[in-house]
Amino acid sequence: MFDYSHIDRVIKAMNEAGIAVIVGTPTYAIPTWLAREHPDVLAVTSAGPNRYGPRQNMDITNAHFRFYAERVIRNLVKHVKDQPAVIGFQIDNETKSYHVSGAEVQSGFVDAMKKRFMSLDALNLAWGLDYWSSRINAWDDFPSVDGAVNASMTSAFAEYQRWLVNDYLAWQARIVREIKRPNQFITQNFDLDWRGYSYGIQTEVDHFAAAKAVDVAGIDIYHPGQDHLTGTEIALGGDLARGMKGGKNYLVIETQAQGFPEWTPYPGQLRLQAYSHLASGAEMVEYWHWATTNNSVETYWRGLLSQDYAPNATFREAVQIGGELKRIGPELLGLQKKNEVAVYFSNRAQTAFNAFKFGWTSTVLYNDVLRPFYDALYRANVETDLIDPSTKDLAHYKLIVAPALYAASDAEIAALKEYVRAGGHLVLSFKSGFSDENVKVRSTSQPGGLAEVVGATYSQFAIPEKVSLKGEGFASGRTEDVRWWMELLEPTTATVVASYEHPVWGKYAAVTRNRYGKGEVTYVGFMAGDKVMAKILGRAVERAGVTQLNGAFKYPLIVRGGVNGQGRGIHYLLNYSAESREVQYPFGAGMDLLTGRQLKKGNRVELAAWGVVIGEDGAADKP
Amino acid sequence: MFDYSHIDRVIKAMNEAGIAVIVGTPTYAIPTWLAREHPDVLAVTSAGPNRYGPRQNMDITNAHFRFYAERVIRNLVKHVKDQPAVIGFQIDNETKSYHVSGAEVQSGFVDAMKKRFMSLDALNLAWGLDYWSSRINAWDDFPSVDGAVNASMTSAFAEYQRWLVNDYLAWQARIVREIKRPNQFITQNFDLDWRGYSYGIQTEVDHFAAAKAVDVAGIDIYHPGQDHLTGTEIALGGDLARGMKGGKNYLVIETQAQGFPEWTPYPGQLRLQAYSHLASGAEMVEYWHWATTNNSVETYWRGLLSQDYAPNATFREAVQIGGELKRIGPELLGLQKKNEVAVYFSNRAQTAFNAFKFGWTSTVLYNDVLRPFYDALYRANVETDLIDPSTKDLAHYKLIVAPALYAASDAEIAALKEYVRAGGHLVLSFKSGFSDENVKVRSTSQPGGLAEVVGATYSQFAIPEKVSLKGEGFASGRTEDVRWWMELLEPTTATVVASYEHPVWGKYAAVTRNRYGKGEVTYVGFMAGDKVMAKILGRAVERAGVTQLNGAFKYPLIVRGGVNGQGRGIHYLLNYSAESREVQYPFGAGMDLLTGRQLKKGNRVELAAWGVVIGEDGAADKP
Amino acid sequence: MFDYSHIDRVIKAMNEAGIAVIVGTPTYAIPTWLAREHPDVLAVTSAGPNRYGPRQNMDITNAHFRFYAERVIRNLVKHVKDQPAVIGFQIDNETKSYHVSGAEVQSGFVDAMKKRFMSLDALNLAWGLDYWSSRINAWDDFPSVDGAVNASMTSAFAEYQRWLVNDYLAWQARIVREIKRPNQFITQNFDLDWRGYSYGIQTEVDHFAAAKAVDVAGIDIYHPGQDHLTGTEIALGGDLARGMKGGKNYLVIETQAQGFPEWTPYPGQLRLQAYSHLASGAEMVEYWHWATTNNSVETYWRGLLSQDYAPNATFREAVQIGGELKRIGPELLGLQKKNEVAVYFSNRAQTAFNAFKFGWTSTVLYNDVLRPFYDALYRANVETDLIDPSTKDLAHYKLIVAPALYAASDAEIAALKEYVRAGGHLVLSFKSGFSDENVKVRSTSQPGGLAEVVGATYSQFAIPEKVSLKGEGFASGRTEDVRWWMELLEPTTATVVASYEHPVWGKYAAVTRNRYGKGEVTYVGFMAGDKVMAKILGRAVERAGVTQLNGAFKYPLIVRGGVNGQGRGIHYLLNYSAESREVQYPFGAGMDLLTGRQLKKGNRVELAAWGVVIGEDGAADKP
Repeated sequence: MFDYSHIDRVIKAMNEAGIAVIVGTPTYAIPTWLAREHPDVLAVTSAGPNRYGPRQNMDITNAHFRFYAERVIRNLVKHVKDQPAVIGFQIDNETKSYHVSGAEVQSGFVDAMKKRFMSLDALNLAWGLDYWSSRINAWDDFPSVDGAVNASMTSAFAEYQRWLVNDYLAWQARIVREIKRPNQFITQNFDLDWRGYSYGIQTEVDHFAAAKAVDVAGIDIYHPGQDHLTGTEIALGGDLARGMKGGKNYLVIETQAQGFPEWTPYPGQLRLQAYSHLASGAEMVEYWHWATTNNSVETYWRGLLSQDYAPNATFREAVQIGGELKRIGPELLGLQKKNEVAVYFSNRAQTAFNAFKFGWTSTVLYNDVLRPFYDALYRANVETDLIDPSTKDLAHYKLIVAPALYAASDAEIAALKEYVRAGGHLVLSFKSGFSDENVKVRSTSQPGGLAEVVGATYSQFAIPEKVSLKGEGFASGRTEDVRWWMELLEPTTATVVASYEHPVWGKYAAVTRNRYGKGEVTYVGFMAGDKVMAKILGRAVERAGVTQLNGAFKYPLIVRGGVNGQGRGIHYLLNYSAESREVQYPFGAGMDLLTGRQLKKGNRVELAAWGVVIGEDGAADKP
Repeated sequence: MFDYSHIDRVIKAMNEAGIAVIVGTPTYAIPTWLAREHPDVLAVTSAGPNRYGPRQNMDITNAHFRFYAERVIRNLVKHVKDQPAVIGFQIDNETKSYHVSGAEVQSGFVDAMKKRFMSLDALNLAWGLDYWSSRINAWDDFPSVDGAVNASMTSAFAEYQRWLVNDYLAWQARIVREIKRPNQFITQNFDLDWRGYSYGIQTEVDHFAAAKAVDVAGIDIYHPGQDHLTGTEIALGGDLARGMKGGKNYLVIETQAQGFPEWTPYPGQLRLQAYSHLASGAEMVEYWHWATTNNSVETYWRGLLSQDYAPNATFREAVQIGGELKRIGPELLGLQKKNEVAVYFSNRAQTAFNAFKFGWTSTVLYNDVLRPFYDALYRANVETDLIDPSTKDLAHYKLIVAPALYAASDAEIAALKEYVRAGGHLVLSFKSGFSDENVKVRSTSQPGGLAEVVGATYSQFAIPEKVSLKGEGFASGRTEDVRWWMELLEPTTATVVASYEHPVWGKYAAVTRNRYGKGEVTYVGFMAGDKVMAKILGRAVERAGVTQLNGAFKYPLIVRGGVNGQGRGIHYLLNYSAESREVQYPFGAGMDLLTGRQLKKGNRVELAAWGVVIGEDGAADKP
Repeated sequence: MFDYSHIDRVIKAMNEAGIAVIVGTPTYAIPTWLAREHPDVLAVTSAGPNRYGPRQNMDITNAHFRFYAERVIRNLVKHVKDQPAVIGFQIDNETKSYHVSGAEVQSGFVDAMKKRFMSLDALNLAWGLDYWSSRINAWDDFPSVDGAVNASMTSAFAEYQRWLVNDYLAWQARIVREIKRPNQFITQNFDLDWRGYSYGIQTEVDHFAAAKAVDVAGIDIYHPGQDHLTGTEIALGGDLARGMKGGKNYLVIETQAQGFPEWTPYPGQLRLQAYSHLASGAEMVEYWHWATTNNSVETYWRGLLSQDYAPNATFREAVQIGGELKRIGPELLGLQKKNEVAVYFSNRAQTAFNAFKFGWTSTVLYNDVLRPFYDALYRANVETDLIDPSTKDLAHYKLIVAPALYAASDAEIAALKEYVRAGGHLVLSFKSGFSDENVKVRSTSQPGGLAEVVGATYSQFAIPEKVSLKGEGFASGRTEDVRWWMELLEPTTATVVASYEHPVWGKYAAVTRNRYGKGEVTYVGFMAGDKVMAKILGRAVERAGVTQLNGAFKYPLIVRGGVNGQGRGIHYLLNYSAESREVQYPFGAGMDLLTGRQLKKGNRVELAAWGVVIGEDGAADKP
């Protein structure tokens, strides 16, 4: 009944070549016969029923889909599990709920809301449904979310859709786990918010919750290339993937080889990218894909080989990387980081923020706010973890940066306050604490629940127009410093760090700093341009006493480090510039793993354009 | 069965606070149970059936909707009418037909066309349906308007949809009128064409016809704020609202308090806005809304209070305004104007113009043509009435400005000609008289039916490219003077005021002036940029002998006036600038109502930034 | 049953006026009663069922449509055929399949694929359906193409839809041919890809195949006007129309009179346009339309007369043209060209190219690539034929230019190679030969199948950013020289003509030239800006030994010529400039047909702005 000839042929070849294999469950693209026999397998979304053609068009909750998915998973895993090359399984592919909202999903959602709110009165109040006659008086009257314009309802539904992903992945993992050998692992290739490349936090997946189903975190990272390669997305994706399994390292399951024509790597870039992944904690770098397909959508999503299967510049560089890793890979595995800074994100805040953005015509989304904060830290060589509201232990971070925490529960706010009280440094942005976990705007002083810890408050805000900053070190006259949003802050206990430069709004604070307990809170009341962002976060890093590298190391020189599996310090010096650079080696005595050259602190080291130096020393401490 | 607890609580509080209440009928947003029990209540439009979620998604013609709407209206009005605070009722909210086009509406439309045309031959001819085989040979063959591409048909349907609004409001008014106390009035909050703010004439409502149903005109006006506040929309909305009930004053039922973040008023602006409304003839200024909702769509449509219910700068300014009005309000009520200039608009011309615009890729709509004409008069401090084809007495205007009168009946054209013949001054623009009331292009010389009175004709036109003007006072070389459209005019009896500056089109007239009977017609053959518009209309105002203020008063100084209910002259001096200004008081002896200071003609008066001076004198004449 | 009153009236008038008539079959717009009686007549497309309203909304394959279409065709042709004025019939109007994709079309498509591939294994392999689980295991599982994302499938379907047009036109032609008089011809008004005007090759029609149904080629050409009139579209449409019937001349069935407002002709332009059509081989120039409709969509698609039916500048120029043609027309008929250069296009390449463009966000289509190649030849006064893969005899061309031949069969490639081997000069662009006739990317070296004849190869490409050219005559530093796409070419046997100027890509070739057999191939690896294009094609024209005019004749002076029906040479000198020009007459002794003036080689001839000189000499050779 099942035809295993292709997979058997590949695994056999891999066995012979000594290449380990992760087998994926083939559930993310349904066959033609299934769509014909059970058209209900195609998801119904607010746009109507899906059509057959693209992948990931199915309803992951559908009983027929689950039946046939389970059948093929069981059979396939059984068939391949005893092959020695098979070290693990990938369940599904970049799983999401694909916006499914058909009758059964709606019914499941209503049931979930019954459990959550117990009574309709509680739900009507939490969501503000008295407005516009939207009150629900009987559960049977619950309208389809497809037409909803109430962000409390749509955000709750988005949360339910994220839960569907958790549930689906856990279900697949259970099936595979029943059958696989104990020493085989389960992983998934999570992906990021997509803007033509991996851009930020995925709205549709709760990464930390969904990753509970797997043994090893996996991630797909595609990033701009050529002159636009910065390494930021590699770091961001890595920081996120490490967080999925509590700091354990991860697999890069997909990243670009040649990729799109605008990504075709310059000589040296593929290698720089590979080591950048490892420097973030990846234990594997896998390319999408070996050779490029000859038909359909991904014809220009080019693998290591083009359709001609002939070696090309990119392939040859991959061979070089393979050779190097064969030699020095064991030194690089098991890299552990103890980062002092965390960037705090929240799917709930993201969905809620995106429902309102900065107004009806705004196109700015949560990730557009988060990225400039993250990127400024990256460019300053401040290594970070990505954490979310489920992260338990905040206390070991010297600094937490939480942009646009638009919707947060009382408990979440209390944890952040406690973090500061106990000595932590917190950077908060505008629109934080604004609404509760039901996306109901708080009726307390803004920033709701955080006003005390921030030491400042506001009840008005504006869209900046011809606004810049004033205050020690901030008076640039640049209107690009203040963009998209500005809150009219008035300090209560906080110090004003910067104010707005504007004929009318000049009396309001823009950046405040407040002592609270043993800690400190910096509040940024507006969306900062990149230069101001670097200044604000630079000060916060300094005041929080974050261990910092020599100031000479700024982007395009990126330094990442940690302790390897054997307890030795590993330092990656990565040059993202098109020019070679000579730098002073900033670490203790050690060796360049790639060249074998001895390194001492202060040595002149030549860093090739798009080049890498990997220093190893005996110490277990980061520099 | 009905739960009145909320409304009882509010009215009780208002009674106690001595605040009068207008109770609205709650029919513009249907409840969940109604959508579930009678899904046909949701309107069917050319985009398919509406979904539950937004407000104003219902079919206002639907029998189930009407049944339940009548029930709630009757019960509510009965319940509250005897409360002393209740002075009137608002029927529905910003009512439109919401593009309803389902089977019953289609059937009603066909019936209306039977009555209008009597025979299909007449209809086929009027609409030109022989073209593209669209001839209708039997009433049963009448196709749904949803797919129509014939502007005669779609315009007739738009007119029918506007009639649905008249019919629906009259129906609500009849119900309320049956029950309310005799001394309670009925009003409606009509709104304007929306471009993120109130922009121009509402395409979907025939304001003057629809307002027949109410006792007192009401209007919702939202306008740009901060550096973009000009007062133009306040004046435009006011001029329209006065026209609704034949020059009687009106209620501003909604306007912004804090509004959107980009509107958050600068200090002084809320007060300037309030007096601007009164200066246009408003008898009330009501804010949307008291405090801001915590959930859903209008979370950022901010009322006097934010969600924290705490006083803020805007609220405090509203308190100040309230105090002033308590003191001087009685002097301001009953303001009567006798404007010498009218701007003539037409829903029929609007719908027809918008069907063609300036070509298939053009995005310019009727209001984009009308506004520059209106705005130039506003900036020149020429007070205007807005009139439409239903306006009977044109003769008392010294000047009528009628832009883009694209579709007009013979009778309408005859009335305008008669107005001129008897001594009126008329400014017409390009594309006027072009088609008849069925949007059939006239086969007579263009401007169709108006060619004689215009004294010029054309049969060709072009899109201006690198065209400016020539002629006494018009030769600027600015290509922005001539935009969007240009008719190649040839005078018959008219004088050429300006011609096109262009290598090929230079021989054609651009602006002509013609004596006709005792009057005069200025024809503007192209869309004028703001500077040229000011020049053309300035000359027309002068030649028509319109009473004008001292030339020193130009925008940003706006002067409005009239005679108050006690027969005394009231003059508003409004400063829309961010700078204070000293001006010479231009009126006779009187008093500044706000400060009590005596004023004499020629006195130096300091006008604060966004400031107001209200002068009152004993004379009943406008200055 | 049929009412012929209108058509009888018109034909009678034409008979009396001595004007010949081509009667069109009225099948491109269905009547209201047909849509009501047989709603299935309205085509179902991937957007759902069409609505009644626009024309060309019907399913040309539908049995009910065919029944009533045949009935009206038979009756109409029978009724008019014996009128002496009727010289021919036009079948339908600008026929396309209108994207029909309903169940019956889908079923026909599957049947066609059965015949083409014989087995599903062959189809699955050719289309790469194993990818994304899209394999079809049973013909009954064949999914609707509406949802397809596989370009092999969508391109095959597009080809099937083009076949539907051939089939439909052939069906109409058979019916008309049964009835018409033998001396009456059949034609069709084919149109071009539409970008607000006639822009390029029609994706939806296989012009050469579809034209088999007709006796005389016809074409509709609308083009930019006023300052934007270049004559390019007139030449392009003419070159295509001549190709439809193997070099036989054609009818311009529609072109603009006044047209859109942005086209209203400058004085002289209508005449220049008319002679430009004749210079390309047109035997008739017919305007759309006589007078302008008073209602509906084409109110601003203005004919010779406006709605006032009064003479205007454009009409008067048409009268002048008519007078001239009455006098000299017989000299101009039967113009035969023997062009040495052909531009090679392919509907298959076009559909496939457009499926991928230059990436997912690219908006560049096949015609955007083809036009700059065509236009450069036009501006250089190189007369061309348009040929496609069905063209048999390539050998008589000195130069063939084949841009973006994205999908081509082995046979097609072999024919091009054979052309070069035998001595032809071939210019190929990037992305040629890339995929086979099933849009399967070739696994051979790129350019697939052409690598040998090109003498260069590549397996990588990029999107140019800050790239210019280097190499003898190419080093301009202009980044606009290299746009949209660049292949990283490495020569095998070819000479490098130009390379990329770029820090990284500088080692790759951009333009190569290769001897192959007795011929030569120029390969252009990137999309050239207009200046570079002129240089590359200029060299190719020179190297191919194409007969060239005096270098002084470049656009805006356009020279076209040929041998008329009486064997005499005819030379059109067309001035597309707004300025008069004096030129040296470049041909032998002859006469200006328009003025009767004798002309000698080297004479100074004054060419008016938008002016025409038609020289006739006794020689049968082109200059």
